[in-house]
Amino acid sequence: MPKQVDHRGRREAIARALWRVVEQRGVSQLSMRVVAQEAGMSLGQLQHYFASRTAMLSFAMDFASEQTSVRVRRGLEGLGDRPHPRDVLRLTLAEMLPLHADARATSRMSAAYVLEALHDPAVHEQARRGLAEGRALVEQLVRQAITDGHIGASRDPATETNLLLALTGFTPLIELDVIEPRDALAAIDAHLDRLFSGT
Amino acid sequence: MPKQVDHRGRREAIARALWRVVEQRGVSQLSMRVVAQEAGMSLGQLQHYFASRTAMLSFAMDFASEQTSVRVRRGLEGLGDRPHPRDVLRLTLAEMLPLHADARATSRMSAAYVLEALHDPAVHEQARRGLAEGRALVEQLVRQAITDGHIGASRDPATETNLLLALTGFTPLIELDVIEPRDALAAIDAHLDRLFSGT
Repeated sequence: MPKQVDHRGRREAIARALWRVVEQRGVSQLSMRVVAQEAGMSLGQLQHYFASRTAMLSFAMDFASEQTSVRVRRGLEGLGDRPHPRDVLRLTLAEMLPLHADARATSRMSAAYVLEALHDPAVHEQARRGLAEGRALVEQLVRQAITDGHIGASRDPATETNLLLALTGFTPLIELDVIEPRDALAAIDAHLDRLFSGT
Repeated sequence: MPKQVDHRGRREAIARALWRVVEQRGVSQLSMRVVAQEAGMSLGQLQHYFASRTAMLSFAMDFASEQTSVRVRRGLEGLGDRPHPRDVLRLTLAEMLPLHADARATSRMSAAYVLEALHDPAVHEQARRGLAEGRALVEQLVRQAITDGHIGASRDPATETNLLLALTGFTPLIELDVIEPRDALAAIDAHLDRLFSGT
């Protein structure tokens, strides 16, 4: 079905144009007109793919999450057949931080999306669901690591999961050059070392 | 100088109107015209207080940081003359999270400001300086706690400071109802307990 593939391809190209607008001009410039211009199409053509600004944003956010998952999956393939849970968490956390161009684009998109969610219940629900699913995956991994003896049995899996997710708080600190990427990664390593050594 | 006081008062009222716009309508609606309307004045009157959108945003951000500091200071007064550094950190971190209306307003303002900073060098520098100063205060507190034996001497003060600041990463997770406020506070307590017990 070449037509459908092309439709998906055009939507992804629009999503990437939207990310560039967020990255280079800021979320305050995020209108359908500006995104159409950035994507090199007319507003009418854009509206053929997305009926509303919210629909466009939702797709761009889903696509950003997907791209993050693809990067994590690719990284995991490099870790061999049975990767250590510490390495899986390290890689997942690192890919959520704005440490290279692709991760920066998706990270900025996420930050813009959270702000949109604050005053749009539909966006709020979509963002909540996406993050809750990600949280559930991390908690599953932490629980398995406790079962397998990689993490001490005295650790509370829900609390440890929440602390791991909170480490995405390095994002604004890296974006604003308050903390160097290598120092953020060193802090994540220190946290993981303690989690997995049981101290 | 009643005139100057009034000038400051009007600027603060505008800043609060700006926060409400960010909170209720989103940063994408953040224009001088919309803020003037929210503040109940004409665009011309607003321009008497702020020459540009960036000047208005900068003041609103500085005022948000000040209000956070005031809340932290007030909280510290309740901790007595020589508060334990664990309590100081607990209170500071809690006030940076969107756990009540005032903190929510300043937290949302900060998030909008970080996004603005990504494509505006002047805003970037102001935001970086503010965060770096906050980071320096926390590091000073951590170093003193190590000197005083409250935190183990084997802990690296810079790394521990960075991990503490990263805990502001609970903000989007709380805003999107992925993590309950009480669970975020429980995780912060678990982190502080381990930091101060040396395990």
